[in-house]
Amino acid sequence: MTAFADSSVSPTVTTGPITGSRKVYTETPGGLRIPQRRVELTNGEHLDIYDTSGPYTDPETKIDVHSGLPGLRAPWIAAREPVNGAVSQLAYAKAGIVTREMEYVAAREGVDVDLVRHEVAIGRAVIPANRCHPETEPMIIGKRFLVKINGNLGNSAVTSSVAEEVEKMVWATRWGADTIMDLSTGRRIHETREWILRNSPVPVGTVPIYQALEKVDGDPAKLSWEVYRDTVVEQCEQGVDYMTVHAGVLLRYVPLTARRVTGIVSRGGSIMAAWCLAHHRESFLYTHFEELCEILRTYDVTFSLGDGLRPGSIADANDEAQFAELRTLGELTHIARAHDVQVMIEGPGHVPMHKIAENVRLEEELCGEAPFYTLGPLATDIAPAYDHITSAIGAAQIAWHGTAMLCYVTPKEHLGLPNRDDVKAGVIAYKIAAHSADLAKGHPKAQQRDDALSRARFEFRWEDQFNLSLDPDTARSFHDETLPAAPAKTAHFCSMCGPKFCSMKITQDVRKYAEEHGLSTVEAIEAGMREKADEFEEQGGRVYLPVVNP
Amino acid sequence: MTAFADSSVSPTVTTGPITGSRKVYTETPGGLRIPQRRVELTNGEHLDIYDTSGPYTDPETKIDVHSGLPGLRAPWIAAREPVNGAVSQLAYAKAGIVTREMEYVAAREGVDVDLVRHEVAIGRAVIPANRCHPETEPMIIGKRFLVKINGNLGNSAVTSSVAEEVEKMVWATRWGADTIMDLSTGRRIHETREWILRNSPVPVGTVPIYQALEKVDGDPAKLSWEVYRDTVVEQCEQGVDYMTVHAGVLLRYVPLTARRVTGIVSRGGSIMAAWCLAHHRESFLYTHFEELCEILRTYDVTFSLGDGLRPGSIADANDEAQFAELRTLGELTHIARAHDVQVMIEGPGHVPMHKIAENVRLEEELCGEAPFYTLGPLATDIAPAYDHITSAIGAAQIAWHGTAMLCYVTPKEHLGLPNRDDVKAGVIAYKIAAHSADLAKGHPKAQQRDDALSRARFEFRWEDQFNLSLDPDTARSFHDETLPAAPAKTAHFCSMCGPKFCSMKITQDVRKYAEEHGLSTVEAIEAGMREKADEFEEQGGRVYLPVVNP
Repeated sequence: MTAFADSSVSPTVTTGPITGSRKVYTETPGGLRIPQRRVELTNGEHLDIYDTSGPYTDPETKIDVHSGLPGLRAPWIAAREPVNGAVSQLAYAKAGIVTREMEYVAAREGVDVDLVRHEVAIGRAVIPANRCHPETEPMIIGKRFLVKINGNLGNSAVTSSVAEEVEKMVWATRWGADTIMDLSTGRRIHETREWILRNSPVPVGTVPIYQALEKVDGDPAKLSWEVYRDTVVEQCEQGVDYMTVHAGVLLRYVPLTARRVTGIVSRGGSIMAAWCLAHHRESFLYTHFEELCEILRTYDVTFSLGDGLRPGSIADANDEAQFAELRTLGELTHIARAHDVQVMIEGPGHVPMHKIAENVRLEEELCGEAPFYTLGPLATDIAPAYDHITSAIGAAQIAWHGTAMLCYVTPKEHLGLPNRDDVKAGVIAYKIAAHSADLAKGHPKAQQRDDALSRARFEFRWEDQFNLSLDPDTARSFHDETLPAAPAKTAHFCSMCGPKFCSMKITQDVRKYAEEHGLSTVEAIEAGMREKADEFEEQGGRVYLPVVNP
Repeated sequence: MTAFADSSVSPTVTTGPITGSRKVYTETPGGLRIPQRRVELTNGEHLDIYDTSGPYTDPETKIDVHSGLPGLRAPWIAAREPVNGAVSQLAYAKAGIVTREMEYVAAREGVDVDLVRHEVAIGRAVIPANRCHPETEPMIIGKRFLVKINGNLGNSAVTSSVAEEVEKMVWATRWGADTIMDLSTGRRIHETREWILRNSPVPVGTVPIYQALEKVDGDPAKLSWEVYRDTVVEQCEQGVDYMTVHAGVLLRYVPLTARRVTGIVSRGGSIMAAWCLAHHRESFLYTHFEELCEILRTYDVTFSLGDGLRPGSIADANDEAQFAELRTLGELTHIARAHDVQVMIEGPGHVPMHKIAENVRLEEELCGEAPFYTLGPLATDIAPAYDHITSAIGAAQIAWHGTAMLCYVTPKEHLGLPNRDDVKAGVIAYKIAAHSADLAKGHPKAQQRDDALSRARFEFRWEDQFNLSLDPDTARSFHDETLPAAPAKTAHFCSMCGPKFCSMKITQDVRKYAEEHGLSTVEAIEAGMREKADEFEEQGGRVYLPVVNP
């Protein structure tokens, strides 16, 4: 039992494989074991899926939340020397050194390791991996790689506990969260974070100003560089992998929000605006930014430069306050990189569809293509309780345009703290958005899963269709609501159209005919169709009707 | 009690206003009463919302499903003469005649009636309004108007009843369905449709081939032009407003589907493919198309030319089968228009984001800008049980590009027949998609609702935020899960961040200062900020923290 493991806290976390799949490890030539989730199909094939769930879905691994996860990266970190005083992936990449983390993510993404090193070296990708968080399975965030998603969790003063938040972390990564952020603002912030860090298989992000504010009794005017700096060091030592820093909220930008419909909606942004206003001085995050870089480079903590002035409504999208801050984030990006600190840029928020592309274009131009990390954006304001959907619409588009990581939004957004069910709803909606973007970007392997699932659907392999889906349990339960009996799992219909038959079968027959006769052109197939027509008549002219829409 | 009203059927339908709003009628100079849903706000303002729910949400109207709705349009229809033998809105529009339906939709959309007449005359918009369905409240489908949504319902041989389907119709229109389609394929098809038509305040669409197939005992080879024609006439007489006709599935196109991953996934398309194959003859829908036009023009039934060869998977999107059929639909569009029959074109299906725009461009080019009416499209295949979300992503984009009506997809798509909850989930997801597109297209009034809701959010008018949302009941219940007490409805926080305060208040103060001093430039506001800073300090430096994300 480690120091963090308070005996009064005893989280119960979800373990065991996702329905219909099992954990497999592929060993690289370099001896790394890359986890994947293998879906075994009833036709003898299988599909391996990128897996974020960590050891929790591996029945071979003993899970003890009081001990935390094993330190996968500990020997790698111990074995290497700093480069020019820095231990960041960026410093190594610039020096031409391929780290074990780079090897790991290359294998995980199925790309050449030199692409990984190159993208990290030029700052177009980041590998968030604090040397004090050896438990993480390395992952990469960049537009040349699979689109990633982040799940926010953390308690508030009103509700939730340490145990609940640890389970939300395990639950979010089970369904596909690539990183999580601990946004706790309630009691026991340090302890909650410690529990999450020691048990998280994915990088963990935070917003240090939240804890700093707690230390000064919630009064922004009492904040100081010193309190903030000490908090950052405390969190670096704990192992936080990336930190949201709202260093672009400058004093002179605050008035730009005066005529907005929803003013400042970022919590960190509003705290810093309040500080600037109270002292009529420039933000200490901005004036001390180089000192901050010096701290982060010692741990390899990645900056997530926060958009404290992001629009909180359709009316405020792409306004001067937002883009003024973005220009400052660009300036800070180049400073951070000069210090060998990795950087991502946070983005909006609420943006109507026709203003989305402009956000990516400007971010890339101003911030040297640093990975963009956006919250949605919500494409409309009118659907509280469904903002996982309003924002998945915007998220899919902005990711297609080049956003590297999407911060999820749950159905509870604007209404309350998300519970475990909300976390799953948010993760699934964002896996949909991210995967849709991977398809649209032409990611070479993305379509494999769509094709496998569609083939299963076409061949009425219902179990395979469920197991290949993002949420096998729910897909199966929806099907079984009206047709629960086992034979329905091989039936050539569902309750949508009933026990008629499906014309997809004709296509199968035609294709088979063409293959048997070595036909390759449409004309040849059509010739075959005539024969098929006769055969069809002989069989009584019964056809299959599909199970989908008109 | 009318003839349709079988005493063994007794639907219970949902009546009464949507929470937080009430039905109002605006009287036009021409004496038409346009229904709207008025949301009264706690600050004394109100917002009127386009209302599809019919008399069911008006407590002043007595609802008797056994009698059906009053025939709003009956006197209008009786008062006018055919133009060149046709009674279609298209014929009147071409002749320069403004119908009462055109006046009604112009007032409903808040546009000039001449825009309506012009768009109908050139075929870029349709007003589906069978003269035998006088119960409808007229609506328009076209890219120059608000994006519309359709909800599919109807029983199957496996499940559901007449009563359930009538309630689904009322329920779908309550939440915003602009039209519904009765896709019943089970028992009592004619009777189910009669119940729906007599009680529906929105246009009703069908796919006549389904019923025709039932008449020949489910054997496509036994279908004939005569059976089909008689079924169409029967449905025209009943009052169906638009009909899906898969007349573009030509014999020579069937082989084009041979190498697809999912073949033919349209039910009507597969029936016609089977018929063509069985007889090795051209589709009777195609060869008898002009006779079909002659029937439809007599009733003013609108064609919804079906995409029988639409892609059923990402792999099959934008392939030759799909676009070959689209070219034929273009040919048929011009024939129908020459007969004064209104036309819409149905579209896919499953399409990755980067292939969506091409669908709209081709449809507009080939089909003379006839209103496009798409099913989603789903932007990925991998999320059965969440296809309302996968398809809302595609729907929002295709509507932005110009699709006039979106056919909803429910969470049960591919898995089973949707129930009442699924219908609501589908309608809400599609209202989000349609409204997001209205915003992106720059519809002059669309943003009013976003702005009103965002202002309510900014000012912590929780009740107003709920009532302005697409689903007030769910928004309220999500909020109340963690903060059920009445004072929380005026509190300046929710459970997400707890009882701290929100920086949006600062913006309010700054704005107030600027207004009081007549300041209009950023510099002037900034000057005011310094004074504000002093005041802020005097007040103890407490600020408001927001209730949203980091």
